[in-house]
Amino acid sequence: MTKYKHIALITDFGLDDNFVGVIKGVIYNINPNLNIIDITHNISPQNIIEASFLLENSYKYFPEGTIFLCVVDPGVGTERKVIILKQRKKIFIAPDNGILSFLLHEHKTKEIYYLKLPNKYIPFPQSNTFHGRDIFAPLAGFISKGINIKKLCVPLNNLNKIKKIEFPSIIEKETLIKGKIIYIDRFGNCISNISKEKFFNFVKNKKFCIKIKNLKIKKISKNYQAKEKWGALFNSFNLLEIFATNKNASKRFEIKINQQITVVSLPPG
Amino acid sequence: MTKYKHIALITDFGLDDNFVGVIKGVIYNINPNLNIIDITHNISPQNIIEASFLLENSYKYFPEGTIFLCVVDPGVGTERKVIILKQRKKIFIAPDNGILSFLLHEHKTKEIYYLKLPNKYIPFPQSNTFHGRDIFAPLAGFISKGINIKKLCVPLNNLNKIKKIEFPSIIEKETLIKGKIIYIDRFGNCISNISKEKFFNFVKNKKFCIKIKNLKIKKISKNYQAKEKWGALFNSFNLLEIFATNKNASKRFEIKINQQITVVSLPPG
Amino acid sequence: MTKYKHIALITDFGLDDNFVGVIKGVIYNINPNLNIIDITHNISPQNIIEASFLLENSYKYFPEGTIFLCVVDPGVGTERKVIILKQRKKIFIAPDNGILSFLLHEHKTKEIYYLKLPNKYIPFPQSNTFHGRDIFAPLAGFISKGINIKKLCVPLNNLNKIKKIEFPSIIEKETLIKGKIIYIDRFGNCISNISKEKFFNFVKNKKFCIKIKNLKIKKISKNYQAKEKWGALFNSFNLLEIFATNKNASKRFEIKINQQITVVSLPPG
Repeated sequence: MTKYKHIALITDFGLDDNFVGVIKGVIYNINPNLNIIDITHNISPQNIIEASFLLENSYKYFPEGTIFLCVVDPGVGTERKVIILKQRKKIFIAPDNGILSFLLHEHKTKEIYYLKLPNKYIPFPQSNTFHGRDIFAPLAGFISKGINIKKLCVPLNNLNKIKKIEFPSIIEKETLIKGKIIYIDRFGNCISNISKEKFFNFVKNKKFCIKIKNLKIKKISKNYQAKEKWGALFNSFNLLEIFATNKNASKRFEIKINQQITVVSLPPG
Repeated sequence: MTKYKHIALITDFGLDDNFVGVIKGVIYNINPNLNIIDITHNISPQNIIEASFLLENSYKYFPEGTIFLCVVDPGVGTERKVIILKQRKKIFIAPDNGILSFLLHEHKTKEIYYLKLPNKYIPFPQSNTFHGRDIFAPLAGFISKGINIKKLCVPLNNLNKIKKIEFPSIIEKETLIKGKIIYIDRFGNCISNISKEKFFNFVKNKKFCIKIKNLKIKKISKNYQAKEKWGALFNSFNLLEIFATNKNASKRFEIKINQQITVVSLPPG
Repeated sequence: MTKYKHIALITDFGLDDNFVGVIKGVIYNINPNLNIIDITHNISPQNIIEASFLLENSYKYFPEGTIFLCVVDPGVGTERKVIILKQRKKIFIAPDNGILSFLLHEHKTKEIYYLKLPNKYIPFPQSNTFHGRDIFAPLAGFISKGINIKKLCVPLNNLNKIKKIEFPSIIEKETLIKGKIIYIDRFGNCISNISKEKFFNFVKNKKFCIKIKNLKIKKISKNYQAKEKWGALFNSFNLLEIFATNKNASKRFEIKINQQITVVSLPPG
């Protein structure tokens, strides 16, 4: 019987209402000895892709014995299922809407389940609109106490049966790669979907030019303190990022989510 | 000697300044083994009605042994009193400005007290403007450690002596009921003060029409995924709520707090 | 071997992204038995002065055995150092950019160190842009477990070697003192750098007039409930503050950071 010590929350509930507080109340009611950690509650309302991106870039930093509770759930109260994915000593709980797709690409042993309702622990949800409180919180609470998942859930052998989301893809040609800005952080840094690995596989030792809006960038900066007061670097997610030194690049250059970004290979000399 | 394990905070201090952090510091200074849970700190400044509404719809989800610390306190530094209300195994601490009125309607054994100042534990507040730090936090800290409330407080036998606030009321006539929008959540859902119980007592099995601004709604949706892309449902507080599917109903229909909402009973056929 | 039970965080990472959650994940990975307390994460991006002001007005309220982790770090990835300041039973960790200058004026025994990289515990940062995750969080985690600071750090005997920031200063003349608004809180209260002590040293028992924009204030209010619906008082930081009763003084009087505020001594009668 494994016990889980931490629950990490990622939701679109925000911090203005009482939703997050109530979810925590329900969890502590079931397991008062847990440690609950907020990843963020400010996912844009109903934005599954954003939640998935941030979770993908967070979960490996958490300890073994963490349950990730992901409640971005526009389909609350419909027939959409609740899935539980177990990967070594971490558990992910989310509605079956694609939030967890990124995990499917990874080559670790995993088990996957659907929640069966009603069950001994969660007889029925009290509402059709707040399953964070009525289903997700108690489910995480009981699993954290070491209740066998199979007492609440049905195992699913085929991972292909869970819903997947489409992340923006990269177009690769001989002389260029085209990506998109997929996330803008609090500082206004504009994060693309072009990874360090993809970039250097393409660029190798040659000269290059990164084009976004009317900007042309011919080198990778090491940090945010660039002489030119703006530039491109590989950020802590290993993704190509446009920044402005001590400023908000998104505002300064009017770059928004989905903006195209291109890397062109230059002839030598 | 009962000990309390959790302190749940609801305040209008926001998360931009250091107010909430300092309150937690003071509490942990007194009792380092507590678990502090944020309900919300983003109550609109000085909005006692909003705080009361969210606390009313939160507290029952928290474990026994929770102290609710409610600091929305425009009268800080005046003669207003600090009250401590004990209801079975939960304690509520708030300024005497009406935040706790909703508890008085409930039929559970309760004890009520005023804080007496100075006392052995809280000699005098350091400031006139931040009793969250100087009075509420130490009070909650000492009570959580099991200090007898009577050592700091004066019992009050008559509940009618504490301040009450007026919640918007519902007008009930033979052919209609009139309520108001009393809360708008992060998603833009517009929550009225018409409860499920009141609604069905009035509507019974008859046809009905819900009118708000120029909208007319003739059925109750089960969840947010309505075919029409908007509608009305009973939310997780069991209150009638106007929503827009994956959108912000408040913005889309320009519905604000205090907007009137009417339920009309229709002739059969 | 001292152990530390609490880590108090103050950063400019905001609560929209996953930065703060990831930092907590890293810390709990190293020491799962800690208590992490948020002071605030909403420091304006790169605003070292704001962070320093709020930390100065927070730290004394926290228990002994608290590590303060201060990550407002525009120079991340440059040669700027990471400093560790130990003051009795509290530890402060910050980039060497002046955040901790206010501590240098205080007359308590203190030790100060620079982090040496790489070391046994932190081999190398994974990124150049997120040392909160890669350096600060593990450093705080290991110190909290009682690892001897000298195993990771180099002692520094001369406090004058760490970077200092200039806070706005007060001009004192025979008949007036001139200060500035240095902070505006969530409620719109406008906080100046004129302390209660400085004010009364100047004013003594004489009449006075406080001038800011076109306002003239001739008395100090006791609390926010002034008959005139606005006024000046000494706040919980013991600083002179302009307020509007149940309103936002900053908006009402259009007062911004750096606005001049003058106290004039009046002739008797």
